[in-house]
Amino acid sequence: MKIAAPYLLFLGDDANRHSTKMAQGLKDWVPEKCVAQFALPGNSLDVGLPEMTPALAYARGARTLVVAATNIGGFLPQAWHGALLTALEAGLDLANGMHVQLRDIPAVNAAAQRHGRQLHDVRHCDIELPVANGKDRSGKRLLMVGTDCALGKKYTALALARALQAQGRRATFRATGQTGILIAGQGIAVDAVKADFIAGAAEYLTPANDPQHWDVVEGQGSLFHPAYSGVSLGLLHGSKPHALVLCHDPTRTHISGYEDYPLSSLTDCMDFHLRAARLVNPQARFVGISLNTSKLDAATAQQLLADTAKRQQLPCVDPIRFGAQTIAAALQ
Amino acid sequence: MKIAAPYLLFLGDDANRHSTKMAQGLKDWVPEKCVAQFALPGNSLDVGLPEMTPALAYARGARTLVVAATNIGGFLPQAWHGALLTALEAGLDLANGMHVQLRDIPAVNAAAQRHGRQLHDVRHCDIELPVANGKDRSGKRLLMVGTDCALGKKYTALALARALQAQGRRATFRATGQTGILIAGQGIAVDAVKADFIAGAAEYLTPANDPQHWDVVEGQGSLFHPAYSGVSLGLLHGSKPHALVLCHDPTRTHISGYEDYPLSSLTDCMDFHLRAARLVNPQARFVGISLNTSKLDAATAQQLLADTAKRQQLPCVDPIRFGAQTIAAALQ
Repeated sequence: MKIAAPYLLFLGDDANRHSTKMAQGLKDWVPEKCVAQFALPGNSLDVGLPEMTPALAYARGARTLVVAATNIGGFLPQAWHGALLTALEAGLDLANGMHVQLRDIPAVNAAAQRHGRQLHDVRHCDIELPVANGKDRSGKRLLMVGTDCALGKKYTALALARALQAQGRRATFRATGQTGILIAGQGIAVDAVKADFIAGAAEYLTPANDPQHWDVVEGQGSLFHPAYSGVSLGLLHGSKPHALVLCHDPTRTHISGYEDYPLSSLTDCMDFHLRAARLVNPQARFVGISLNTSKLDAATAQQLLADTAKRQQLPCVDPIRFGAQTIAAALQ
Repeated sequence: MKIAAPYLLFLGDDANRHSTKMAQGLKDWVPEKCVAQFALPGNSLDVGLPEMTPALAYARGARTLVVAATNIGGFLPQAWHGALLTALEAGLDLANGMHVQLRDIPAVNAAAQRHGRQLHDVRHCDIELPVANGKDRSGKRLLMVGTDCALGKKYTALALARALQAQGRRATFRATGQTGILIAGQGIAVDAVKADFIAGAAEYLTPANDPQHWDVVEGQGSLFHPAYSGVSLGLLHGSKPHALVLCHDPTRTHISGYEDYPLSSLTDCMDFHLRAARLVNPQARFVGISLNTSKLDAATAQQLLADTAKRQQLPCVDPIRFGAQTIAAALQ
């Protein structure tokens, strides 16, 4: 999948129903690929890029409009179709990370053909995936897992891959979700593959490699999430990790959007993950904890990281605020 | 999905690569729907039905050719396409439980349209599934789980649903795989839904019901299977079971086809399942064990069932050989 850069980030039309997680992730990790943002009237979402129409963004170099607002269920609201057509007319390709595919919207498909534009449905995997074979393979794999969704697994994986590389180690970020794919330029959205092939997709993403090479695998969902746990277990088993990092938001008390589901303790969470992981890799162990302290002041955050590190006897970082070096170093 | 009965069971062309599990399941549970079997030259597979060509089967009343041979990966070999076309020409609809869809084979799709025939891809779900909401709902749910694939979860669920009904209880078998769907006439093949929707599919299949009604849910895969564990965990969480039955083949030492994966003990297996199940339903408990003793003589089987019941302090049955009544009774 070759997606022409740079991007115009489309933020949709409705501040209440959509999240800017994807747009923010692109801006944070590949700012050089992000020319501008484009929101429909009445949408107050903002990721701090200049606001441009598709025509202006094209004139400033943009080559793909990325649907960078996300919603639960992964659909493309009817109200967005006009903007997609405008972008195609302005000369932009389209990239979309929703479950619903651009190619299945007749007007969009027809316009893309008429204008000679590409449609990239990055959540859709066109590869014929294998069923996982479960066999050992060379190379090391480090997987992010979490107490919930959307609390820093992708950021932690990106930070760890860069920290390993900065230490002169061989490491590759492996994207398992739509934003990661747009950042890395490749990957598989494992939450969108057929259920029988989750682990197979994870094996495909992390093939045999140099014995000292680390695949740093973006996590998805949580083993403790009532809707997405299957994705998380398939990813855990297929990636056969040697090392795990537990990602957590210390201000969260319940699974986000699921008030009947209090979060488990970090200790219980790690214990359950290890039990599942050691089925496929008896060497699996936790090498660190990543806390998303974005809602805490710096002093409180530093104290919490120190306390957690001491209690769990593991390096504990907020990779965005304070770097991920101590976990990367623990992988020696 | 309304599939015209009775069926002609297609057994494919290659005894080494395909399994008759599906054909045997249909013959065992809905013999009244199975007119005949049809195998290509050189195929020695046999489920004990009369062998008929599509034309003869149609003359004897068959209305649908069911692709009843299965393979790993769920594809429809090129060598079968001719037989599918012959069946359409003979007046039969087609039903297929593979991942690959009949409608995606151009020659088959065109022939079906030309002859006015229906194509049923039972593993493909045309419903727009919801993401699981995890909420409590009325009614009771009984889920089959296993130490591995293909060792009796579907048969146990069917036997338990019939045993409950025979005791005058309200119970419904809920099919989660292609054979179960063809037996029950409805269901969702949860291994073929997009990974984000596994638990949502299980919720959809087991909606709120009368408080005394039991949904008896066919299990899939195993939490201990390196390829399919994600399906199993999503199904476990989405079905929010009150009761579980562990299904096991006592002659099996390893995950079938995965020699590096020895089976866990029944105790470990139940413990891990309960830990996962109680996240969504604190009442979850094991109510019985189902052993597939088909490879043991009757005396050995009876002894093993008695020993296992005593050791695990649970009713232990082989539902096919000796009935499932003791487990059904334990659900009082």
